[in-house]
Order: sequence, then structure tokens, then C-alpha cells
Amino acid sequence: MGKGGMSHGSAGEAKDGEEENMAAWLLGINTLKIQPFKLPPLGPHDVKIRMKAVGICGSDVHYLKTMRCADFIVKEPMVIGHECAGIIEEVGSEVKKLVPGDRVALEPGISCWRCNLCKEGRYNLCPEMKFFATPPVHGSLANQVVHPADLCFKLPDSVSLEEGAMCEPLSVGVHACRRANIGPETNVLVMGAGPIGLVTMLAARAFGAPRIVIVDVDDHRLSVAKELGADDIVKVSTNIQDVAEEVSQIHKAMEAGIDVTFDCAGFNKTMSTALSATRAGGKVCLVGMGHSEMTVPLTPAAAREVDVVGIFRYKNTWPLCLEFISSGKIDVKPLITHRFGFSQKEVEEAFETSAGGGNAIKVMFNL
Amino acid sequence: MGKGGMSHGSAGEAKDGEEENMAAWLLGINTLKIQPFKLPPLGPHDVKIRMKAVGICGSDVHYLKTMRCADFIVKEPMVIGHECAGIIEEVGSEVKKLVPGDRVALEPGISCWRCNLCKEGRYNLCPEMKFFATPPVHGSLANQVVHPADLCFKLPDSVSLEEGAMCEPLSVGVHACRRANIGPETNVLVMGAGPIGLVTMLAARAFGAPRIVIVDVDDHRLSVAKELGADDIVKVSTNIQDVAEEVSQIHKAMEAGIDVTFDCAGFNKTMSTALSATRAGGKVCLVGMGHSEMTVPLTPAAAREVDVVGIFRYKNTWPLCLEFISSGKIDVKPLITHRFGFSQKEVEEAFETSAGGGNAIKVMFNL
Amino acid sequence: MGKGGMSHGSAGEAKDGEEENMAAWLLGINTLKIQPFKLPPLGPHDVKIRMKAVGICGSDVHYLKTMRCADFIVKEPMVIGHECAGIIEEVGSEVKKLVPGDRVALEPGISCWRCNLCKEGRYNLCPEMKFFATPPVHGSLANQVVHPADLCFKLPDSVSLEEGAMCEPLSVGVHACRRANIGPETNVLVMGAGPIGLVTMLAARAFGAPRIVIVDVDDHRLSVAKELGADDIVKVSTNIQDVAEEVSQIHKAMEAGIDVTFDCAGFNKTMSTALSATRAGGKVCLVGMGHSEMTVPLTPAAAREVDVVGIFRYKNTWPLCLEFISSGKIDVKPLITHRFGFSQKEVEEAFETSAGGGNAIKVMFNL
Amino acid sequence: MGKGGMSHGSAGEAKDGEEENMAAWLLGINTLKIQPFKLPPLGPHDVKIRMKAVGICGSDVHYLKTMRCADFIVKEPMVIGHECAGIIEEVGSEVKKLVPGDRVALEPGISCWRCNLCKEGRYNLCPEMKFFATPPVHGSLANQVVHPADLCFKLPDSVSLEEGAMCEPLSVGVHACRRANIGPETNVLVMGAGPIGLVTMLAARAFGAPRIVIVDVDDHRLSVAKELGADDIVKVSTNIQDVAEEVSQIHKAMEAGIDVTFDCAGFNKTMSTALSATRAGGKVCLVGMGHSEMTVPLTPAAAREVDVVGIFRYKNTWPLCLEFISSGKIDVKPLITHRFGFSQKEVEEAFETSAGGGNAIKVMFNL
Repeated sequence: MGKGGMSHGSAGEAKDGEEENMAAWLLGINTLKIQPFKLPPLGPHDVKIRMKAVGICGSDVHYLKTMRCADFIVKEPMVIGHECAGIIEEVGSEVKKLVPGDRVALEPGISCWRCNLCKEGRYNLCPEMKFFATPPVHGSLANQVVHPADLCFKLPDSVSLEEGAMCEPLSVGVHACRRANIGPETNVLVMGAGPIGLVTMLAARAFGAPRIVIVDVDDHRLSVAKELGADDIVKVSTNIQDVAEEVSQIHKAMEAGIDVTFDCAGFNKTMSTALSATRAGGKVCLVGMGHSEMTVPLTPAAAREVDVVGIFRYKNTWPLCLEFISSGKIDVKPLITHRFGFSQKEVEEAFETSAGGGNAIKVMFNL
Repeated sequence: MGKGGMSHGSAGEAKDGEEENMAAWLLGINTLKIQPFKLPPLGPHDVKIRMKAVGICGSDVHYLKTMRCADFIVKEPMVIGHECAGIIEEVGSEVKKLVPGDRVALEPGISCWRCNLCKEGRYNLCPEMKFFATPPVHGSLANQVVHPADLCFKLPDSVSLEEGAMCEPLSVGVHACRRANIGPETNVLVMGAGPIGLVTMLAARAFGAPRIVIVDVDDHRLSVAKELGADDIVKVSTNIQDVAEEVSQIHKAMEAGIDVTFDCAGFNKTMSTALSATRAGGKVCLVGMGHSEMTVPLTPAAAREVDVVGIFRYKNTWPLCLEFISSGKIDVKPLITHRFGFSQKEVEEAFETSAGGGNAIKVMFNL
Repeated sequence: MGKGGMSHGSAGEAKDGEEENMAAWLLGINTLKIQPFKLPPLGPHDVKIRMKAVGICGSDVHYLKTMRCADFIVKEPMVIGHECAGIIEEVGSEVKKLVPGDRVALEPGISCWRCNLCKEGRYNLCPEMKFFATPPVHGSLANQVVHPADLCFKLPDSVSLEEGAMCEPLSVGVHACRRANIGPETNVLVMGAGPIGLVTMLAARAFGAPRIVIVDVDDHRLSVAKELGADDIVKVSTNIQDVAEEVSQIHKAMEAGIDVTFDCAGFNKTMSTALSATRAGGKVCLVGMGHSEMTVPLTPAAAREVDVVGIFRYKNTWPLCLEFISSGKIDVKPLITHRFGFSQKEVEEAFETSAGGGNAIKVMFNL
Repeated sequence: MGKGGMSHGSAGEAKDGEEENMAAWLLGINTLKIQPFKLPPLGPHDVKIRMKAVGICGSDVHYLKTMRCADFIVKEPMVIGHECAGIIEEVGSEVKKLVPGDRVALEPGISCWRCNLCKEGRYNLCPEMKFFATPPVHGSLANQVVHPADLCFKLPDSVSLEEGAMCEPLSVGVHACRRANIGPETNVLVMGAGPIGLVTMLAARAFGAPRIVIVDVDDHRLSVAKELGADDIVKVSTNIQDVAEEVSQIHKAMEAGIDVTFDCAGFNKTMSTALSATRAGGKVCLVGMGHSEMTVPLTPAAAREVDVVGIFRYKNTWPLCLEFISSGKIDVKPLITHRFGFSQKEVEEAFETSAGGGNAIKVMFNL
């Protein structure tokens, strides 16, 4: 299969004598079925991977509930899943750095490498990107997938397959930290202690942030953030009137100027707080997508040269995620709160758990 | 007068036998009076300048009409004016690079050089900044002022005093171009063809922008922009419903991706257009301050990694402005549409002209 | 032919009824022969180009004289040439942006897009690079070549095929200017007025350099540089003892601090001059390769934070070169001093002319 | 005393009833005498500090042995010392952030804040810099000194005065790491395990470097480096012929590409190793000053885009050094190997110890 081709096959039947590859197909709203998934042929630079760990992302749940996410609409049955790790089963003729048996984490997106953005090193913005479980491209919640070898990163012995799968959500935090240029002099505020807020906090710490304050409306989430290493936490309301008062509390908790704020919620109120709380010359990184159109005090922030930077997925993050995990700078294991097997019943339960609004952070399949 | 001290004196009487220094004092809403202005003593690193050319800025008009601008409030009588050039009359004991008779353009702000922002080279964000005609600091619409020598930039022979005064508004465009990293590969969209839109357009061209499209609601302003060098112009409405259609017209006019958009108006509609029109990975620089709280599609722009950067005044811009003007890369003369002398009557007329909404771009005093 | 495959075929016979593709083969020291060159099959993302203009580079001459250049050694017969432009004859099945008849300039190097350097946007450093006429990869001095479509850049109507071929040497200057961050505030010194010195000078001007001084040992070259736009020229010796005196002359010629020096010669003396002449906090960009091991005052330069940056070829330069040429910011035509047809005799004459040390700047084949 | 004035007084007598301030005066080669040192008057932005901890730097020893260092020559008796911390005794009228009794570390250099380099944030390159114990400016090995308040950084309770004095040498490592852009993805090679090599190694670790290999000719120094946290060490010779073989050993020790090499020795051999060992696209930071003129393979490194950056002192480093020390990311205490009191005899012994070539790393005075 060529570099730029569609990476993933179609529903179909296995050849005689061959094991049938099964995958979790999104067939309609609230309808996920485990069905056969025929793999594409193995190209010279591809590998075939037996999936061992696949996490559920908020976008997966969103697709299941609405058949869409942002501007992407599911029009045909689609295999779901994109946070994954597995074991190499077969390698293409030109693959030199991987062999069967290697444990790998998968970067889900295949970019074109022919457009300007790819050539300039911003391949995450490639308009031709083929990305696991972003329609019409199939995902990776399957027994096996075929993927380009250069997007499969060998796990150090000390890193488990589940930790490998966690590289995907962690990559969001890592990319956000790179875009906001986090280092040992950057005091960081994180708005929102959900899964993305937490990985962003962990990444900011690993990038050297000396002081991190995290904000949420929920006591449990805040206590988890504290356990995972926040220097201080601030509980806030959902009332936009409280911004000024809460900024003052946040400043008190930080005990210093806020150099960078990550808004991992993305609502009018969180973004208003972010823009107001950040010091002159600082940055706000908008990660969450609560509101699309936003009503926020953008002009006063601009007049203090507070820059607003956004992120789209990530690029070149897997090696750093693996370094962070294997060195112990980041421990992603506490984020995995629930585990399920890969049966029809368990897949349904797993998505319910992830969607359920309880205390689930990351729900993981062990295949 | 020390580097960090208050740079400008107070109303008072001249000593016997000495010429009395007169200045334009803002005394209340719509009340400007030419009255004596006593200069502070000349410090070792200061120079005394005889003012020859002073332009009127939108902020000057705003102070006159409302006694305030953004968060700054005029509580005591204040000398107005900050876009200026003149001739050195006297130099402090430690001044080595200037002599009486030198023609100079003045950078209006004196920063503290003791805070972190000053030391990191972002002195425009200094919280202790003393800036001409930003209360409670007096301005420069006066026969003479005292100012630090290092903020007075000698004019090349080919640059007139009026052109020297134009370095101040031009600096806004230059600083915006630096923050947005304009160069020979940057296709530029400018929202708003007022004075700031025009200087930003001129600066972008001088930084090498290969293609510039400018947008406004007013035909006359657009025709001026075209004469001053815009590659194309697009007339737009004030109706927020028209954004999508206008973005499409703008894209057609640009004939290429828009790398950077300068919003020199700063309204919900202009910023919505800016955020939507700019290519993935591009930048929007918010220069205008039409609305303070903004309702704009910030999240979709962030998800395409369109960064939003603001500006506050400028830093280190005078040498480059003088290079641009003396080399002919920028011609600021066509921007000066009206000239007045420095009498009570003319000062009043000049401000009326500037505020009048006619076709005035820059109104200049010749003292 | 796949993206990462060997792009160029082998000597062989054409099929019946098909025109035979001829190319200039480097067979041994001082031995170039026009012989048949069998093209590889056209891959889905490739195009077939009829070559129309091919320039001779110093490296081509070096290979002809010594069968090597830097660390690259010619071990098998190799088609020479890499500065080229032509007309599309055939496009692969997936090519969407080019059609037969399009006039294009060719970027010569095919990188792997699988290594870290490619993915980070520094594809010019790709260790798997396949580059025209860098052994064992064949070059482009041939009637036809096959090349990836994304490395073929359509010429604007106003740009000739010869100008298209000049994008290659100009790219060296453009990449050097990008690495040295040239802009409208950068005063530039260029050491060496040979072909690379000249394109670097032209590029620096197009990037906005306000003042450029160029230095050489040869009066004719200096006079050419002056005609092409140098603000001032300084004639120097080859005697290392003269560095201090010459730096003083150069400073006088510049009339300002030197922000960036391009050493386009690369000898102990030129680099010593570059390191000494550049202002504290400036940059020296080493482009020429006169000496490999260098004896230079590196430590005093480092202690003034004068950075030394090198270049290897270029990346993402063709669109900018075409913009510079089509806008008239750069005129490459005066650099083309000699033209030859594509016969055995003319090929030999052309290489002699290029190697001859006369006043040839660029020798061009019209095929 | 004004901001730009000479910061330090002259030998002289104290007034009646006032304690006489004593300092270590460099009077000639190998001649240091404790003599009275009259302080300048306290300016409005100055503080008077009672010195408590002063370290000996290699440059101090160099001045003592030769009355010069690099281009600086001691022509008049000069108080020595510049690595220091103490307790505030008196504050000027405008000082707001410090009070008597505060424990502070002193940044030794006073820049002009009027030149381009200061205004652009590169104040360490200011040509008007007044720096402790750089002739003709007096140093800080004295009971008391007067210094600008903004160059005195309050120590957190957990940081000792000796650790405060260590901020100065540590700043060299921090500035080097900033110039080389060290972060969690940067594998670092350090050439030289002397005091500067060690602080650079500690700083690189604190900036997040995942793997650091350090090289020296001396077993004891290497064992100290290992104890202080090097991931691996490589013993090398002083024979230039061994470069290729040693590069191969270094690569083996690193187990990965070398992104940045700090040459903290600065000899032909160390720099040749650095240039050869660093990966394409990496950086070499030249910190040591062993040789002035260097014979090194600069061209092949440039052709792999290995940049060479130098450093001059530091800027804006004290807050980060204090953060590194107080957070425990860096432990400077093991570097302090010898301590002395402030008597004539002990001063002589301390300098002999520092110069002695034994196992002294940092020699510290407790006043």
C-alpha cells in the first residue's frame, strides 16, 4: 500500500484458513458492532500490527453519540479507535527498523508529504491527512491493522503496551506545550482537569514548568489533579460574572505571574479567565473546544501582547512521549481507570463507561 | 532628569529673560488651551528639543472628546501630543551622539530598564512606562520638550521633520509586521484602510510582502489604499451575515493562501473575517481596538493553528522607520493630508479636522 | 516509480518506434559522452519532463575533473546536471496540479519523508536523499527525465525556462539568507563575488538587506557585483596578514555594523575576515567550501556571540525563487554569460568554458 | 549613584566612627592585599550589601597570575571578585523591592540600557558594560559593596548565601543552555569536566536533557562528573590523531544522535571532536577558551548544518538559577570543595588552592 493511499481496508471475508480480523464498526448513532475487517495488502514500507491496547477518546464517544465530530461526518460504516499499541506481525519488503515481535505505539495520521505544510514540518495541518477513525478513514480498534512502519514507534522494554497507547492522548499535551514553548521558567495555568487538562499538566511538568495551578468546577477532578502533581488547585463556578474574582484567586494560588495558560475546556468563561489571568507578553493556548464561537475579552489581551495559539493534534511527539514515560518523568498509568476486553458486550460497556460522566479518565481495551 | 524620572514638567512661569515655552494643554472634554509649560531640568543623558512637527493621533482625539482612552484617564491638565520631530537645542553633559542643531524624531516612551520585561527586550510592555500624553505624563505638542537622548533619532538629510514625526504611526505598522513575522513569502490581508491600516500596509510591503489585499467599508479609503500600493481591494459591508461570502471574495482577490491578516479595525466582523480567511498555520495580528469584548469563531481558527497576536505600541522601531523612509521603500508624505500652525485657533481647527470623519488621514502641526 | 525509489533509470535501449532519450554521461575523468539514457517507469505521482534549459554548476565541473566532490565519489557511469527546467510531457495517474505542456523548474532532491529530519521540516539533511547527479543518482542533462510532480514548479508566464533553471543556484542564496535571517534591518557583507556570492547578494537584497558590501580579489568580479547591485565593493588580497587592515576598510565601506557575513569563498582568510568583521551578536554564514579544515579566530568571535551557521543545499525555495524572479525583485538573466546546444562537441566546450576561469558566471545548455 | 555610573569606589579612608570597609586589592602579578575600599555614595536605585560569600573564578586567578584576561588588562589597583552573595544593609530612596536584612545574590554587570544591544534584550553584549573585577571596574571581594537593586536577587529561605554566590558560575551554564536551546529532546555532549563543564552539565539536566555524556582527560574529574549525574563518561587523550576513534566511542556512549555539544575546554582537539560528533542539524556551543585561533574541520560541520554558537557571560539568569537551586533540580553544594575566611593569609591560600590544579572545583570565601 502506497504512502499516501487509504491505509485501511474494508469489511469483507477472510481467505480460507486464515484467521478472520475483527474490528469495532460504527454503524450508526449508538451502534457499534464487532464485525470482520479486511486488511489492505501490506505495502513495502508498511507493517501489520496485532493490536493489544486501544484507548477510548472523547472524539470516539462523540462519533458514537452523533456520527460526527467538529466538521467530520460519518457517512459510511467506519472502524473506530485511534489510541493504540500492539505487536508487529509482519513487515513490508523495505522495512528496516522493525521486525515481527516488536512492541510498538502507533501514530494515527498519515500525511501526504507533497504539500507545503508537510514540507515545512507542519504535517499535522496537511489537508490530505488520513487519520485513524476520522471519516472516511478506518480506525484501529481491531485485532490487526496495517500501518506505515515510520509511524510505529518501538516501545522500550520498560514501557507497557497500555502506556504505548497512552502516547496518543499525551501527544496532545506535548504538542500544546511545544506550541506554548514551555520550559523551566514558565509558570503554567491549566483550565480544566479532564483527561486533556491532565495530560497537558503532566506534559508541562515534564517540560520543566516550575509551578502549575489547575482549575475546574469539579472537586473530584481537582483532587485527582492534585494527586497527579498540580502545585495548587482552584475551584471555580460556571458563572461568567465570577471571572474577575476567580482571576484574583488564581493569581494568589500561582504566587507569581502566569506565563502560559492552557484552556483545556474552551468555553467563554474559561477563555475569558485565561485571557485575563495571563501576564503581559504571555501566551494562551486554546486546546479545548467547548464553544465554537466565543465571546471573550480578546482586545485587552491583545493590547498586553498575550498571544493566543491553538493546536491541531500533534506532530513528531511519539519519541518524546516514550522518553517521558520510560524515564519516569511522566506516569500515565494512574490515568487508566477502567479496562475492558474486546467482546461485543464489553465494547458497549466500555463506551458507556467512557461517556458516563463518572470518574472515568481513560478507558482502555486489552485485546 | 534621571532616566526613570518623570520626563516632563508642569505648568509654570518662565524665568526672566527666557522665552516662555508654550504647549497645548488638555483641560477638559473638548477643551484644549495653549498655555505655558515649564520644562524639567536637563539631566546628563537628556536633550532639549525645539518641536517642529507634531501629528495628531486617534488617541489624542479620543482624550479630547472623552478625557480617557482604553484604561487611561486624564485627571489633571495634561499636555497632549506624541507623534513628533524637532531640532536639538541643548544636550546633557553625558550625551555623546547628538549636538545642538541635529534634526531628530522622538520615540515617546521612557521605560524603567529595571523590570523583567525591559531586561528581556520587551520594553514596550514595561509597567513603569512613562509615555508622552498618556496620563499623568505630559505630551509633546509644545515649543520645547526635554527627552532622553537615546530616544531621539537623528534624521538623515533626505528625511524631513514631518516625515520624522510620521515615524511614530509608522512604528505601529512596523511592530505589527515584526510580531507577525512578515517577509517576502507572506501574503497579507489588511482589514481596515484607516491611518493604521495604511501604515501597516506600507510596512508590510517594505518587509517584502509579495501580495497585499486591503478591505474596508468605504470607497474613498479603498481608493487611497490602492494608490498607496495595495495589490487589490475588497469593499465589504458591516453586516456580520456577509462574512462567508466576503471571505470568498477576499480569497479570490488574493489568488493565494493568506498567511497573515492584520485586523486594523478590531470589530466582531473584521476579526471574524480575519480568523476565517487566514490559512491553516497562519497568523492574525489584532491591531485595531473597535470592540473590547469580541464574539468571534476563535475555536475553529485555533484548531487550524491560526495564531492570534496583538501589539502594544512598538519597540526599537525608529531606526528601521528612518531606513524605510530614507531608502524610499516607504513614502509617508501622501498620508499627511492637512497642516496647521500652532495658534489656539489652529489647534482647535486641527483637532476638528482630525476628528471630522472627512478624508483626513494625518493632520500635522508645523511649529 | 515510488516516492522514495531511485528516480532515474539506466543506460539502455529505447523501445521500437520510441524516440531514444539521450543524456550526458560522466564516464571518467574529463570524459563526458552523450549516450542513450533509459528512463524509469512513470509512477503515479511522477511526471516526465522534456528538458529545455540546464545550467552547469561548479560541482558538475568538479566531478568531471576528479570524479568526486566532497565525500561523494563517482564509481559507475552517471548522467550529469541538476540545474534545470523543461516542459511536462506526461503525468502519472495521481498527479493533479500539472498537465502536459506546463513549463516547470525542477528541485533536484528526493528525500525519504520517513526520517526525523524530513518530518521536522529539514528535509535537505535527509540521509536517504536521492539528488540529481550526486552519485549514484543520475542527473538531468538529458532530453527527458522522470521526477516527482511535487518537485516540479510551474513557471509563471513571465519567467523563461532559463530563469527556471536558475532557481537552483539562486536557491543556495535564498537558503543561506533564511538561515541567517536576513531582513530589512540586516546589513550584509559577502565574501567572494563568484556565482554563489552573486546569487547570495541578489537574494539578500530581495530579502530586504538595506546595505550590502561585497569583497573579492578580482576586479572584474567586483565590477560585475557592483553592476548587479552591491552598495560598495572592497578589493582584498590573499595574504592572511592583511585581515585587520581589510576589516577596517570593510567597516568603512559598510558605514554601519555588519549584522551578517556570508563567506561564499570558505578559505582561512575569508572566514577570518568574516569572524572579525561581524558585529557582536551577528552571524556568519559559511557557504563556500574553499578549505575543509580551517584555521580561524573562532574563540574571540564566539565570545562576542557571533554565531556560525552553515548550509546544505536548500529546502522549500522554488516558490520563493519564482516569486523573486517574476516580481522583478531579482534579475538572474545577467548571470547567464554563455549558452550552448546539446551536441557532444558543445557539451565539451560548455564544460571547458565553465571550468576556464575566464569571465563565465553561468553556462547554460538549451536543449 | 546613577544607573550607568561607575559602580564602585576607590581606595580611601573611612569617616571617623564608621567601620572601615576592607577589600582584596589586586596590586600586581601574584600580589593581592586586603586594604580599605571606600564605597561610592548610595544612589536612589542602589543598595549597600554586606558580602557574606564570594567564590573564586578562573578569571580571578588569571588576573592574579598575569594582570590580564582575554583583552582586559589591569592597569590600576583593582578589587577582585565577582561571584557573590550577601545581606542588604541599606537601600536607596527609590528601592521598593528590597529591605535591609534581605539575603541576596548579585548579578555582577551593569549595562547602559541606552545602546541597541541593551534595548534588544542582549544586554550582556553591551559595549558600555561595567562588570565586577573587569578592569577598570572594582570587584566584590570586600566587606561591603554598593550595587543597583535590580541586580540583587532575594534568596528563598531554602537557599544559602554560598548557593547564592554559586548563581554566577551556574549562570554561565544556564546561558549556554539557552543559547543552544536545550530541552527534553536534546541529547547533550559536554567536552571538559572542569567547573564550567560541570555547571553546564547540571544546567543541561535541569533544562531537561534526557542523556548527557561528558568527556575529559582526567579520571578524577570524570568520576566527579559521574557522581554529579552524567549518564556516561568518556576518557580521551590530548592527541589530535585520536579524534575519529574517540568520536566513535562517544557515539557508542550516547546511544543516540548528539543534538548539542558544549565545548567547555575550547582547544583544537575538543572543538574538532565537537564538530565531528554532533548530528546533522545540531549545535555546538563554544564555552571554553583554551585556544584563541582554532584549527578545526569547520566546513564539513557547516555542510551538515551544525551551527556554532558562542556565549559571553549571561543575561536574565539569576531568577532561573534560584529556581533551579531552590527546587532541588540543581544541587551546587558539592561543587564547593574549599572554604576560607577573609584574612590576608587565607585570601592568599584560597587563590593558591584555586590555582593549584588539585581537585578544587569551587573555592569559596565566607566573610
